[in-house]
Amino acid sequence: MYRPEIKMLDCSIRDGGLINKWQFSDEFVKTNYKLLSEAGCDYIELGYKASIDKFDPKEYGKWRFCFDDDIFRIIEGIESESKLSVMVDIGRVNDEDIRQKEDSPFHLIRVACYAHQIIKAIELGKLIQDRGYELSINIMAVSTNSEREIDEALNDLSKTDFPLVYVVDSFGNMYSEDITALVKKYTAALPGKTIGVHTHNNRQLAFANTIQGIIDGANYVDASVFGIGRGPGNCCTELLLSFLQNPRYDIRPVLQLIQDEYLPLRQRIEWGYIIPYVITGVLNEHPRAGIAFRGTEDRDDYVKFWDMLTTAEPDTQI
Amino acid sequence: MYRPEIKMLDCSIRDGGLINKWQFSDEFVKTNYKLLSEAGCDYIELGYKASIDKFDPKEYGKWRFCFDDDIFRIIEGIESESKLSVMVDIGRVNDEDIRQKEDSPFHLIRVACYAHQIIKAIELGKLIQDRGYELSINIMAVSTNSEREIDEALNDLSKTDFPLVYVVDSFGNMYSEDITALVKKYTAALPGKTIGVHTHNNRQLAFANTIQGIIDGANYVDASVFGIGRGPGNCCTELLLSFLQNPRYDIRPVLQLIQDEYLPLRQRIEWGYIIPYVITGVLNEHPRAGIAFRGTEDRDDYVKFWDMLTTAEPDTQI
Repeated sequence: MYRPEIKMLDCSIRDGGLINKWQFSDEFVKTNYKLLSEAGCDYIELGYKASIDKFDPKEYGKWRFCFDDDIFRIIEGIESESKLSVMVDIGRVNDEDIRQKEDSPFHLIRVACYAHQIIKAIELGKLIQDRGYELSINIMAVSTNSEREIDEALNDLSKTDFPLVYVVDSFGNMYSEDITALVKKYTAALPGKTIGVHTHNNRQLAFANTIQGIIDGANYVDASVFGIGRGPGNCCTELLLSFLQNPRYDIRPVLQLIQDEYLPLRQRIEWGYIIPYVITGVLNEHPRAGIAFRGTEDRDDYVKFWDMLTTAEPDTQI
Repeated sequence: MYRPEIKMLDCSIRDGGLINKWQFSDEFVKTNYKLLSEAGCDYIELGYKASIDKFDPKEYGKWRFCFDDDIFRIIEGIESESKLSVMVDIGRVNDEDIRQKEDSPFHLIRVACYAHQIIKAIELGKLIQDRGYELSINIMAVSTNSEREIDEALNDLSKTDFPLVYVVDSFGNMYSEDITALVKKYTAALPGKTIGVHTHNNRQLAFANTIQGIIDGANYVDASVFGIGRGPGNCCTELLLSFLQNPRYDIRPVLQLIQDEYLPLRQRIEWGYIIPYVITGVLNEHPRAGIAFRGTEDRDDYVKFWDMLTTAEPDTQI
């Protein structure tokens, strides 16, 4: 598949940081930046912007905050044609954390929000655009929203001049038919805007769903190296690059990155095809129940976890 | 998805045995048979039938041969509504290895063949049908065949009364669009026959491709517990059961099987998302190069493996 409009965003550091509170060394992030640039990634997402009054820098690593000057130091001296991306959550970032674009290494700021937060997301998006950045709105967890809720959010977004809106399968619940339905819905509701797709791999459908999004017309697609990300992780960068036929992409530096950095990392932190995340995906639930269960001594008692999530107590029947 | 015609075949022991020469204990296979029966699998495939003049029983385990009396002993006393399946390869089984159906525990015998072996497969298929079994023809590695070769094989098969023919993605190379094209081709060429799908998981597309096959009308689908199988393995039984809405299926016994049997097994033998198999899948090659590479001390030097398979020596240019 080749379509020149398709842009590929690697979110390894940002989504991977959800596993280890962004405790990645400077060297690890530099190596990622260097090799993902060589691989031709259009965007590299280095973390979240967040306020230090919301998160304790003693507990959370640098990539939870992405202070512009820290990032300037990391990328210094590394040749790259990739753009830098950073994500913000509603309510976790202050206006003053977002500099004017000309004073920042970032090109793209992505606003993650739930459908019910769309008005706040639009306010924040306007500020981000006014300060000179590319902008995306990523509406999370839409597999749990009613059609009316999604339609309302899209209607609000349709009145903005925002260029890019993502379909996000936060819980890794969707089949390709769901991706198709949502990409078509977003496309119809948001004429002139570009649609993106961000998938999760609970059911080993992240890559397939990303391909389906591309077939349906999505032109921004997310992936992460070796699929790193909270719980089951994401669509794998190496798989996505094997599918996209853009001559600017090269899978080889990503293979290097996996063997040098991600194999040792996965000895220390876990992500991937892990049954409790299959179960939360099948049941369309947040992975947090799975993450908590993996921290108990019953971590591999999948039947117990299944029963916990599927067996309602008699008095919870409503 | 629910369609009463869909039959699900678990091939864990047969395809998993390709990793360890079928050295599974009787207890392991009994537990598989018991729990997969409880899960409602329509068919459980316990191995290959093969002649002892082709394979040394000192080297290969019981499930490489599947002698009928061995299998009778294994299933004895276990309640089950599942049918038993066994596979045969062209040239590796003698006629006398296949008893009359009434003297065998097997219901279904599946003939695996390459497109160029189709006439031999048809001869063997007739013998199998004459002896009273259900029959399937599984044409392997069609991602490497020309369209003419596939059409010829299908034309030969169309003249038989065989009921079931499988689309097989042996090298884990196919996208869902390839599955659609082949299922449609087989369906058109083989009126009245049922189409099956057997996928491999090199690129994390086995489950998605199986779903696509079902959407396109395939009614026999293969899977294995925790995806066990040579190299990257197969579509996962637990995922497939989460998709198929037939009330006879139950994912819970499969979760039990994974936690009790497959987690410890995977400490001893490997399968799954392993980069050399991603590479053979992307390049549409047999996994044997990956298997050999995983046996060397460079097993995790993915860049070296990539270069080996993609860098032609100057004098090999033709």
